[in-house]
Amino acid sequence: MFALLMTTLDWFGVAVFAVTGALVASRKQMDIFGFALLATVTGIGGGSLRDVLLGNLPVFWVKQPAYVAICVAVSVVVFFTAHIPESRYRLLMWLDAVGLSFFCVVGAGKGLAAGPFIAVVMAVVTASFGGIIRDVIGGEIPFLLRKEIYVTAALAGAVTFVGGSGLGVPEAAALVAGFLVCFVIRGLGLRYGLALPTYRARPGRTAEELRKLGL
Amino acid sequence: MFALLMTTLDWFGVAVFAVTGALVASRKQMDIFGFALLATVTGIGGGSLRDVLLGNLPVFWVKQPAYVAICVAVSVVVFFTAHIPESRYRLLMWLDAVGLSFFCVVGAGKGLAAGPFIAVVMAVVTASFGGIIRDVIGGEIPFLLRKEIYVTAALAGAVTFVGGSGLGVPEAAALVAGFLVCFVIRGLGLRYGLALPTYRARPGRTAEELRKLGL
Amino acid sequence: MFALLMTTLDWFGVAVFAVTGALVASRKQMDIFGFALLATVTGIGGGSLRDVLLGNLPVFWVKQPAYVAICVAVSVVVFFTAHIPESRYRLLMWLDAVGLSFFCVVGAGKGLAAGPFIAVVMAVVTASFGGIIRDVIGGEIPFLLRKEIYVTAALAGAVTFVGGSGLGVPEAAALVAGFLVCFVIRGLGLRYGLALPTYRARPGRTAEELRKLGL
Repeated sequence: MFALLMTTLDWFGVAVFAVTGALVASRKQMDIFGFALLATVTGIGGGSLRDVLLGNLPVFWVKQPAYVAICVAVSVVVFFTAHIPESRYRLLMWLDAVGLSFFCVVGAGKGLAAGPFIAVVMAVVTASFGGIIRDVIGGEIPFLLRKEIYVTAALAGAVTFVGGSGLGVPEAAALVAGFLVCFVIRGLGLRYGLALPTYRARPGRTAEELRKLGL
Repeated sequence: MFALLMTTLDWFGVAVFAVTGALVASRKQMDIFGFALLATVTGIGGGSLRDVLLGNLPVFWVKQPAYVAICVAVSVVVFFTAHIPESRYRLLMWLDAVGLSFFCVVGAGKGLAAGPFIAVVMAVVTASFGGIIRDVIGGEIPFLLRKEIYVTAALAGAVTFVGGSGLGVPEAAALVAGFLVCFVIRGLGLRYGLALPTYRARPGRTAEELRKLGL
Repeated sequence: MFALLMTTLDWFGVAVFAVTGALVASRKQMDIFGFALLATVTGIGGGSLRDVLLGNLPVFWVKQPAYVAICVAVSVVVFFTAHIPESRYRLLMWLDAVGLSFFCVVGAGKGLAAGPFIAVVMAVVTASFGGIIRDVIGGEIPFLLRKEIYVTAALAGAVTFVGGSGLGVPEAAALVAGFLVCFVIRGLGLRYGLALPTYRARPGRTAEELRKLGL
């Protein structure tokens, strides 16, 4: 039951992140195979990095290629439908939030064997890096550099799940709770611009300004 | 015979991609060790990622350091000769096409053990990621974001090789066919701006425009 | 004794690179969890890549999570103190130089089992990639693209250590010598703009100029 729920969340997370990758491809007007590549890298990138760091090799989608097939299928659908939503960027942000929430609990679950602390770290790795790779390759500004809550949400979701599991909460309940905590926090960030206090003392000087100062 | 051909193609692919890395270093006016680093990362990056994902560790060049030596040697030659071609960027594009073609068949060959589907995926990974890493580190616009056919060519070459092998075509012939299919398609893209229909509905709004809209 | 020195240098290297990651986070005005993520990725990124390429999995910080805890602790301290130095960017450059020097000898030491050549390559990988990942994710211009000596310093330090070890110099002495060689060379680069001759023939044309020329 728990394993089934975990697997289901994993599939949803991969599919949702694949949509966000395809949406970035649509913003850059790629062709359909560009869509497929960016969707796939985004969908399976975070989980691949997690598997590599943990030494679970070959990575999950080599054992279960259907994950890649899902990403490709998703990218084809987005190629023909991305003009429908009024704002692709807004859709991208919200789906990214859903994927973040799926992956923070899935990542934590896969890291649990290495202890609760590493579980939380793996949650953040799994949840963040698909999106980071997407934004770096796709030439977008990484969500990480935006001002609203992002890493915080993944962290809170992971701590909820890992803490709940440790306290004996049924694992399925802990999964759902972790998902909801992450999604609500990130959602508040998106909807109301909710943000933790950021480092405010001074923004960084630009390369141009540094050059003038001889740095 | 097949193994020999495969190894030869692999060496050529590494050397050719190393040249493209060194050419990017020349465009950014790096010093000779910057050339060596960027050439090496580009030459062995895609293959390293493939080995890591498949769990073939340590990666190929740790077992055969001569691959790294080739990249360093190539970078020295380019450091002293990059002023000769009339357009380094045009040379860079064409050599990238050659490297893409070598690596799509080599990558597919190394992935065959995990099934035909994964073989094709590994072909695309091996062929694309050396160039992606080069462009991201070197501050160039990734070829992936350009409008002409790129991923498509690698995919077609890989499918030709994997399909041919599966249908009983002699492996050496399948290798050569896969190479040619990839190179011709990418070459048509470069020479005539040949492109698949891209996503045309609307380009993405810039960060500036999104800020005005409150996204 | 040697193992102890090596471990100590490794801890210092991770901590110092984590500070540089947190300083980039402060330049981008992230929140405290953004600080923690960027500090951690920078601190453990180069070593993680080294472990993955060598097949030493799971990576070092999964076995010793205290490395991650150090990075997080460092990022909290920087979050509250980054306004103190007159120029965060200058501090960032110098700490990056210290981290580079630590990691070039540590990386070489961990690669020695695979032969002296691979040891030098691993030194450069370990020393360079934490900073490269930091700059790519954080939206900074990679140090690699700057004109002063960078890779050269790591290479010289690694060759000093590996060469010294090979010639029978006591390993602790070789470690310290390698560290100093790297730091002095990089420091001269920073202080006096010391640079190797770079590729000078022509800078690269920009994307705009290439478009006009039909490339």
